[in-house]
Amino acid sequence: MSVATLDGRTVRVALLGCGTVGSEVTRMLLGDADELAARVGAPVELAGIAVRRPDKHPELPQHLLTADAGALVESDVDIVVELIGGIEPVRGWLLTALRKGKSVVTGNKALLAEHAAELAEAADASGADLYYEASVAGAIPLLRPLRESLAGDRITRVMGIVNGTTNFILSAMDSTGAGYAETLDEATRLGYAEADPTADVDGYDAASKAAILASLAFHTRVTASDVHREGIAGISSSDIGAAKLLGRTVKLLSICERVTSDDGTESVSARVHPVMIPRSHQLAGVSGAFNAVYVEAEAAGELMFYGQGAGGAPTASAVLGDLVAASRNRVAGGRGPRESAHAALPVRPMGQTPTRYHISLDVADIPGVLAQVAQVFAVHGVSIAAVRQRDRLSTASLVIVTHLAPDAALEATVDEISKLDVVREVVSVMRVEGEDS
Amino acid sequence: MSVATLDGRTVRVALLGCGTVGSEVTRMLLGDADELAARVGAPVELAGIAVRRPDKHPELPQHLLTADAGALVESDVDIVVELIGGIEPVRGWLLTALRKGKSVVTGNKALLAEHAAELAEAADASGADLYYEASVAGAIPLLRPLRESLAGDRITRVMGIVNGTTNFILSAMDSTGAGYAETLDEATRLGYAEADPTADVDGYDAASKAAILASLAFHTRVTASDVHREGIAGISSSDIGAAKLLGRTVKLLSICERVTSDDGTESVSARVHPVMIPRSHQLAGVSGAFNAVYVEAEAAGELMFYGQGAGGAPTASAVLGDLVAASRNRVAGGRGPRESAHAALPVRPMGQTPTRYHISLDVADIPGVLAQVAQVFAVHGVSIAAVRQRDRLSTASLVIVTHLAPDAALEATVDEISKLDVVREVVSVMRVEGEDS
Repeated sequence: MSVATLDGRTVRVALLGCGTVGSEVTRMLLGDADELAARVGAPVELAGIAVRRPDKHPELPQHLLTADAGALVESDVDIVVELIGGIEPVRGWLLTALRKGKSVVTGNKALLAEHAAELAEAADASGADLYYEASVAGAIPLLRPLRESLAGDRITRVMGIVNGTTNFILSAMDSTGAGYAETLDEATRLGYAEADPTADVDGYDAASKAAILASLAFHTRVTASDVHREGIAGISSSDIGAAKLLGRTVKLLSICERVTSDDGTESVSARVHPVMIPRSHQLAGVSGAFNAVYVEAEAAGELMFYGQGAGGAPTASAVLGDLVAASRNRVAGGRGPRESAHAALPVRPMGQTPTRYHISLDVADIPGVLAQVAQVFAVHGVSIAAVRQRDRLSTASLVIVTHLAPDAALEATVDEISKLDVVREVVSVMRVEGEDS
Repeated sequence: MSVATLDGRTVRVALLGCGTVGSEVTRMLLGDADELAARVGAPVELAGIAVRRPDKHPELPQHLLTADAGALVESDVDIVVELIGGIEPVRGWLLTALRKGKSVVTGNKALLAEHAAELAEAADASGADLYYEASVAGAIPLLRPLRESLAGDRITRVMGIVNGTTNFILSAMDSTGAGYAETLDEATRLGYAEADPTADVDGYDAASKAAILASLAFHTRVTASDVHREGIAGISSSDIGAAKLLGRTVKLLSICERVTSDDGTESVSARVHPVMIPRSHQLAGVSGAFNAVYVEAEAAGELMFYGQGAGGAPTASAVLGDLVAASRNRVAGGRGPRESAHAALPVRPMGQTPTRYHISLDVADIPGVLAQVAQVFAVHGVSIAAVRQRDRLSTASLVIVTHLAPDAALEATVDEISKLDVVREVVSVMRVEGEDS
């Protein structure tokens, strides 16, 4: 490759991992090198690709392949693009790269959600860049806007659909009325769920992404273990039915909030759980592989970002964007804006986080039931926003939506209500978002 | 103000203009200086505010005010924030600033749409930053994603609602059935339209924004005069009615496309005109002060950005984001990624741009009308996608939607059809977007 930079060098890139996203990145890097060079201001050279079994990749340029990722990282490269995933041994390789001043571009949400602090410190110490746009919401430019465009504003809330598998399953349950287990099987068969779906359906993936979003939005280190996490395995067709009856639908949302206590102290809440939202809400219409994230900021107001949250090419677009940014910084001899964790706000436990509940009960069809139920809410200091009663043969259905209250108070209320003699069954308990209170 | 930077300096900012947006910027700059300093890595100091009549601003810190914007620009400041608007004398001040190595943050779409090349060259020559996120779509982080996040992808299309005034008027016409003049009066009364609404209703504002978007998306200099521009003054209640009848609505869209000819040569098309879109389209639901922009890229696929397109606080959020970025670059001693016009694609005239038409005709209720009309389309090489006929007393209504064809061919077709004896009236002619062909 001809060299035309000011300092006579190409930008040398190491690629770790070459699966669905990695092969798209390779294709884009090798495909239009001139265009890329024009955008960067210097040629970008793919210096090596580390894969576990080089003999399994006849489609890749053979002279670039190596099984020794560690050696590739230590070699004469400027930028390391990591698309292997998982914590170890990747963490060690990326720390080595950053300590040696090599910039890192990664889509590794699990690693970022646990070790962002360590990686950012290594980057800061050597002056290297650490970019990870691909780790959340695939192709959607979301982290850069949070980190840079809104840097002069105060973000109060980030809420969205960031996991495609659970979104597919919930949408399907909503449209077919089928149960969870059956729909998961179908999703697996169609390739929307992994053979082991735990990371998706139990909310681990969405929780990692919530940690990353909360950290950037609130200038605070939030790790995956700080995120309250509930998956969708407990969602029944009754839950979906109850939501449908009320013009609502169920989505698994990642919600990150800046919460201010009565005494003015601020904290951060980050949580992943199923949520009932009105069908008219913009997030209700987001289906399949698409992700959508709402951002609320004090000055900017309400923003929404929408696009493909997964897939080889969309995710590769985010990786390439980061790679161009890191390369431009190399050419200019600088680095991009560093992360900021200066606010260091405490993380508020879920029990103290204000939420709203939707509770659907089957109750005895006798007078005074509502009074008994309402008394339990009152005892726990939970204010009721709306009640709907309906008779059904020998039982009656009672639907209650609360105002905002600490999640622990709501949980205790539901627990006590379920023990009332007049309550035959707690049909569905779901948090609600996106409604006027 | 205490000084805690590495080089012992604050970042000194000059503000030119202090209207709705400027006073919000002032409030945010003075309001939480510590927070801002933490994000930037150095204190940011508002060094002066240039306004035409300092005596008219008792609400501002008097010692900061000056009527001499030129002198403020030449003084010892690092960054110039310009919120005056218009071409002259602003252009001269900003060129001076950039040539002296002072970074510029501006929301001046008219200036950018005409003189971006000159300003960018001055910035490149001195190594200063030139940021203008606030110039398009207010609070929505849009330009930075186009310029940086998608820098490794190939954008093929940018399409959106970027003018709030026309969007308000068209929404109101759609919901009330009222005519254009009447609705414009109402919009003026409510403060949604300026006393002189020309810049908005004739599409000048949207055309400036299209020029800025097309330039960034396609790495090509596109000026406002390259943008085909049609406003909404010609939209009648019949147009809106015809759209409604078919489950569609009318929006003023800015559309920027990369067009590839049969021989493989690429060009750029940028246009602003009313468009009929299906009511199910996400842009159809965007109302009032909100803006929404679709971006399509080869790898990323379809993205959407949504948020407040105007207003003091939302626009100030975008200005502050740019100011933090420019300040961080000052502190780090570098600069942000420069603009790129390396592709330098030719601009395709509107006549050669592929579009689709929706044509609604009142025709004589006699046999053979469709054959005559269809023959005109055939002569001009325009392919018909769908036809709908309906009888109404002595006349019949004929609605035709075409496939993509060069706009000039479509225009010539309509012109010839309007002269047919069997055509009593051309009720409505509107371009369509967002439908399957």
